[in-house]
Amino acid sequence: MNTYSVKEVLSTDLLHKDVIVNGWVRSYRSNRFIALNDGSTINNIQCVVNFEEFDDELLKQINTGAALKISGTLVESQGKGQQVEIQVKEIFVHGGADPDTYPIQPKKHSLEFLRSKAHLRVRTNTFAAIMRVRSALSFAIHLYFQKNGFHYVHTPVITGSDAEGAGEMFRVSTLDMKNTPLTEDGEVDYSEDFFGKETHLTVSGQLEGEAYAMGLGKIYTFGPTFRAENSNTSRHLSEFWMIEPEVAFNDLDANMDLAEDFIKEVINYALENCKDDLEFLQQRLLDEEKSKPAAERSDMPLIEKLKFVSENTFKRVSYTEAIDILRNSKPNKKKKFKYLIDEWGADLQSEHERYLVEKHFKCPVILFDYPAQIKAFYMRLNEDEKTVRAMDVLFPGIGEIVGGSQREERLDVLKEKIKALNLSEEELWWYLELRKFGSATHSGFGLGFERLVLFTTGMGNIRDVIPFPRTPQNAEF
Amino acid sequence: MNTYSVKEVLSTDLLHKDVIVNGWVRSYRSNRFIALNDGSTINNIQCVVNFEEFDDELLKQINTGAALKISGTLVESQGKGQQVEIQVKEIFVHGGADPDTYPIQPKKHSLEFLRSKAHLRVRTNTFAAIMRVRSALSFAIHLYFQKNGFHYVHTPVITGSDAEGAGEMFRVSTLDMKNTPLTEDGEVDYSEDFFGKETHLTVSGQLEGEAYAMGLGKIYTFGPTFRAENSNTSRHLSEFWMIEPEVAFNDLDANMDLAEDFIKEVINYALENCKDDLEFLQQRLLDEEKSKPAAERSDMPLIEKLKFVSENTFKRVSYTEAIDILRNSKPNKKKKFKYLIDEWGADLQSEHERYLVEKHFKCPVILFDYPAQIKAFYMRLNEDEKTVRAMDVLFPGIGEIVGGSQREERLDVLKEKIKALNLSEEELWWYLELRKFGSATHSGFGLGFERLVLFTTGMGNIRDVIPFPRTPQNAEF
Repeated sequence: MNTYSVKEVLSTDLLHKDVIVNGWVRSYRSNRFIALNDGSTINNIQCVVNFEEFDDELLKQINTGAALKISGTLVESQGKGQQVEIQVKEIFVHGGADPDTYPIQPKKHSLEFLRSKAHLRVRTNTFAAIMRVRSALSFAIHLYFQKNGFHYVHTPVITGSDAEGAGEMFRVSTLDMKNTPLTEDGEVDYSEDFFGKETHLTVSGQLEGEAYAMGLGKIYTFGPTFRAENSNTSRHLSEFWMIEPEVAFNDLDANMDLAEDFIKEVINYALENCKDDLEFLQQRLLDEEKSKPAAERSDMPLIEKLKFVSENTFKRVSYTEAIDILRNSKPNKKKKFKYLIDEWGADLQSEHERYLVEKHFKCPVILFDYPAQIKAFYMRLNEDEKTVRAMDVLFPGIGEIVGGSQREERLDVLKEKIKALNLSEEELWWYLELRKFGSATHSGFGLGFERLVLFTTGMGNIRDVIPFPRTPQNAEF
Repeated sequence: MNTYSVKEVLSTDLLHKDVIVNGWVRSYRSNRFIALNDGSTINNIQCVVNFEEFDDELLKQINTGAALKISGTLVESQGKGQQVEIQVKEIFVHGGADPDTYPIQPKKHSLEFLRSKAHLRVRTNTFAAIMRVRSALSFAIHLYFQKNGFHYVHTPVITGSDAEGAGEMFRVSTLDMKNTPLTEDGEVDYSEDFFGKETHLTVSGQLEGEAYAMGLGKIYTFGPTFRAENSNTSRHLSEFWMIEPEVAFNDLDANMDLAEDFIKEVINYALENCKDDLEFLQQRLLDEEKSKPAAERSDMPLIEKLKFVSENTFKRVSYTEAIDILRNSKPNKKKKFKYLIDEWGADLQSEHERYLVEKHFKCPVILFDYPAQIKAFYMRLNEDEKTVRAMDVLFPGIGEIVGGSQREERLDVLKEKIKALNLSEEELWWYLELRKFGSATHSGFGLGFERLVLFTTGMGNIRDVIPFPRTPQNAEF
């Protein structure tokens, strides 16, 4: 007798065969029907027990959460809700789950409660579905880039430099904190630290990615990045995963094309490969929104929204056009925006981005050519000397999902910018050398992976789309 | 006219078409032949320039390392060494590379020198080949697991616990090192730190991976891990990438089957998809070994060695058998081992592992059932109460490439072990709960990714198979 996954017994032609299945009890009702799940799919296999043939002591152990090995014959189901079921011949209890202490009972738990049980929450349908979608999206990302001739590059997590010249960072050290070695000037003596210098956790692999693009041509990173910012919101994590493609010889237009094509293909992959999970998550969202006022409900069901994004052209709008639209918009004139738009150069807030996407254009939007002074030092200056070749992809419900730019490839312009911003030319020596030797137009962007998972699963809090979230005051598990 | 990659013009049917290619000059000889490379392949496209048709000032900029855009007609090559070449019509210089200052000249550079130019070394054939193979191996790993129903899990990098109860860790903190807050007892007051507790960089995602396997069934991690050990060897990095599959309901035999099948398929993928790069690396190794005494040369050329591993069954030997073999071996009797084997229970050193693999069995070996006292707390105790269900996969030239085990699934046995080793039951509360609720047999292993890349590329130093290596005293770039 062979062992199969639940997905296999549900989907392949094993009818009338004897099978073995391992899994966890999702529910056990009428002393007869075990719903068994092993994580391979959202769907359970129903196992039908003739309780008279089994020992009472054994049946007592069949509680929600218990791990079982079941053997029996796969037959057509008599009941509704499933096509096949197992007529159970043997049951082995790997491990029980005392209903008085096991916290994941078959009832609705709040997402907040489940966060405190992050080691067990993947045993619920919702979190198993989210994490399967997350895994599929990860793979879709690799698949997309590998298929298109990109090379995966692992940029360093521990860094001696601060890539963006901004963003709070975590320090990485092995120095004794109680007896910190000091220099004669009374500063911390990092020359005695593990790396012989001050080091931090990276906020972006972009600069190193650029170095690799200038040799391998087309690269992407996919790794963890960090922000030591004390922001406790539903959109921020202290540790999150980021995807950063970088392409030599691509200008900003090609960069926008890449971002749009990439996001669409990745979402399409999920639509094609996570059908059951997305249907479940769609239903979850519909149920959740029933209790909300109509104005707060989603415009479309989850799957329709994903298709809408993957099938429609993203609207490309310059920052300058966007400012005009916003300045003349109702919420601006009626002073409904928290930050009113009155002049060119203003940084756009989430409320503005969402207005453009959700109210004005009603589709994903790519904003480009931002004012130089609100963007990073490495972005290519336009001929107008006021704007840079930056772009942000804005999504409904999420806001910015991608931020990217064409990079400044001119050594002299880059040096001036570094000087003007008081950044360290010395620290960026190697980054500048990329412009000194064989420099060329190149572009790239960063996609915050958890925001993509958030969008694709329809979840509301970013803590619920990563296995063990790290946020201020929280590094449990 | 369309733009193509070098790989495309070399491999597809574009003959007699006009094409545009971007890339970097690898060499320019006879004022006529530009070898152009864009990182898409190890091979260059030869671009033939009729120098009389071009401006002298422009031709002077065609130096090794310069970035060019070339348009012309793809024709059959007259010379040998390539099938096609481009008859150049137009040249645009994206960026020059002054031969007096550009460090990557067309001559042999030492690997040590190139390490100091980690931002430029990927522009050499050797490093571009290594990094393409690295990328292909990464993808092969995802492909293997996804195809076989595993879910990719991102376990946290910042951790509040020390997974193995051993291994030096990097501290992650935002506390002021000069004015470290102290408790009344004079200890560092981590309650004031970012996460409200002491946190470190992870040494393994296994424990969190186990939590996920006990819900999703089959999972794998692929992420960075860290060791703050002051070991400056050719096999150790402070930051490296690890793959850790974990499978519910798998025992140690199934675990060994998985490890063997996985490694073979991944290596096969490289053999099939990185032919040109592996041939180049094979030749590089042959050239390098010419200057070595015969005894230090590889037994087989690189590709033969990879095929040997992927086509032959790994020899499975218990620790106890291995000790017998080693005790009676020539180097042990003649006292050639640095650490002589005289009794059961000895920890195996690299010299012993290599003897078994390279001299005795002459093939990859899986050792299993190690003495409990030399292995980690979470490994399942055998009935003999002396050994645990651990396994190591040993590779020629590399030594341990995989370490894994069946995990202790019995709550009482695990608790006893934790107590005996003075580990913190309190800190491991959630890990213990995995045994309290729905516990089951499960197994997994860890593969050090850089060791796999080292083996596959035939390189000798682990610093040369990761883009920007982190080692003691070194966190440049």
